Amino acid sequence: MFEEFTKELARVAGEAILPYFRTTLEVENKGEKSPFDPVTQADIAAEKAMRALIQRTFPAHGIIGEEFGETNPDADYIWVLDPIDGTKGFICGLPTWGTLIGLTHHGKPIYGMMHQPFVQESFYGDGLTAYMRSPFGTQQLKTRACATLQAAVLSTTSPHNFAPQELEKYLAVEKKVKFVRYGGDCYAYALLAAGQIDLVIESGLAPYDIVPLLPLLEGAGAIVSTWDGQPATKGGRIIAAGDKRVYEEALAFLNT
Amino acid sequence: MFEEFTKELARVAGEAILPYFRTTLEVENKGEKSPFDPVTQADIAAEKAMRALIQRTFPAHGIIGEEFGETNPDADYIWVLDPIDGTKGFICGLPTWGTLIGLTHHGKPIYGMMHQPFVQESFYGDGLTAYMRSPFGTQQLKTRACATLQAAVLSTTSPHNFAPQELEKYLAVEKKVKFVRYGGDCYAYALLAAGQIDLVIESGLAPYDIVPLLPLLEGAGAIVSTWDGQPATKGGRIIAAGDKRVYEEALAFLNT
Repeated sequence: MFEEFTKELARVAGEAILPYFRTTLEVENKGEKSPFDPVTQADIAAEKAMRALIQRTFPAHGIIGEEFGETNPDADYIWVLDPIDGTKGFICGLPTWGTLIGLTHHGKPIYGMMHQPFVQESFYGDGLTAYMRSPFGTQQLKTRACATLQAAVLSTTSPHNFAPQELEKYLAVEKKVKFVRYGGDCYAYALLAAGQIDLVIESGLAPYDIVPLLPLLEGAGAIVSTWDGQPATKGGRIIAAGDKRVYEEALAFLNT
Repeated sequence: MFEEFTKELARVAGEAILPYFRTTLEVENKGEKSPFDPVTQADIAAEKAMRALIQRTFPAHGIIGEEFGETNPDADYIWVLDPIDGTKGFICGLPTWGTLIGLTHHGKPIYGMMHQPFVQESFYGDGLTAYMRSPFGTQQLKTRACATLQAAVLSTTSPHNFAPQELEKYLAVEKKVKFVRYGGDCYAYALLAAGQIDLVIESGLAPYDIVPLLPLLEGAGAIVSTWDGQPATKGGRIIAAGDKRVYEEALAFLNT
C-alpha cells in the first residue's frame, strides 16, 4: 500500500542529496574554507523534501527524522527518516551510504526501504516479503542458511564504534567467524537480507538507524534484536543474523 | 590513445563479472553446496574476456593478470589486469570492488582505469590528467590540499591486512588522523584522486593491485610510493597521499 509513495520519498531524497555528493572539488576550487559541510547540507535538504511530501500527502501522519526530530508523534502512522545513513562513507565519496525510510503503525514497523541514489538501487520490505531493485533487475530477498559462527561472514561498520566493554564482547565473536568485513553501513543489513552476509553486530544505533531496516530484514527471514535479546525498535546495541543458529551462538558472547 | 580500447576492456570484464555478483540466492535456491565459488569464477571469466580482446587487437602486447600470470612479458607494452580487486567486498555483495586495467610502456605505467560495472562508473588517467565518469557525468580529478595528518581522512581496507610489525606503524598514523574509513578497496585510491580522501595506507599489494591505479593517481596530483619511499610499481607496502605534507608526515611513522 505504501510502496509507491515510499519510492517517491526515496526519489525526492536522492534528488536533494546527489548535488552534494563528492563536492570537495568544487569547494576547493572556489577557494572556500569551512563551514560548508556537504553531508549536513544534504541531510537537511533531503529530510525537508521528504517531510514536505509526507505532510502534503498524509497530513495526519507523524514523522521522526534525524535532522528535525518529532512531528505529531502520537499519530497512528509514523514515518521514520534517516536521509543519509553512513555519513563517513558519504564524506569519503563511497557509494555505501543510503537513505532509510520506515513506516510504523501503532509503533510496529510495517514498511521499510534502504535507497542508494548514486548506485540507483533499493532494498525494501513489509515484514513478510522483501526485494531489491536495481538497474539490473528486481529480486526477492531471502537470508541464507549458515550453521555456525565459524562459517559466518560478519560485518560491522567500524570496530572503533564500540565502547571498550562492547568491543571486548564483539571481538570474542569476530575471532570465531570466517571473515569480517568493515565499512558496510546500512548496506550490511540490506546484504544480510540478500543472503550475502550472515551476521551484523553494531552499537550506538538510533531508532531511525534500524527501524526502517526491520521490515526488509524480517521480510527476508532475518532475526534482529538488541544484544540482550530485546526488540530492536529503540536502537542501541543491535545484532542481526540470517540464521537462528548463528544468532544464538553470537548472542551467547554478546549477552554476558 | 588507449582510452577507447581500455573502456572496451572494462565493458567486456563487467559483462563477464555481473552474472556472478550477488548470486548466493541462486546457489542456495538450487540446493547446491560448494565448491561453487562465484568470485573465482567471475575473476577467471573476466580475465579470459580481456585477454582475448587484447590478443585479437594488439597481438604484440604482453599481459600480466591475477588469474593467468604472464604472457609475452618482454613486450614493449604490457597490460596489467586485476579483474576483481576487493574480493571480500564482492563476496559480501557490496559495490566497492572494481576491475583494474593498466598499461605499461617499457615498464612505466602510462594509462590506468578502475571500473565498477554495477555502479557503472570509472576512474581513469594517463599520469598527466585523470577523470571520473558515471551516469551523473564526467569530471576531472584533482587531489585536495591537506596540511596535516590531524586534518586528514585516512582509508585502508582492513587493519587485519597488516602483519604485526606493520600494524604498529600503521596505528601510529591512524591515531593522528581526523578519522579512518575501512573497507575502501580500490575505491579508496580512486577517491583519493577525486579529493575525497587524503591518505591511503596498505600492505601486501601485488603489482596488479596498484600499477593500474598509478596513472590516475598521478594524473590527479597524488604522491604514491612504498613505505620506504621507493616506486610503487612492484606493489608491497603502499602509501598514497593527496598532499605532500601529509605524505611526509605519515612516511615518518611508517619508515622507521
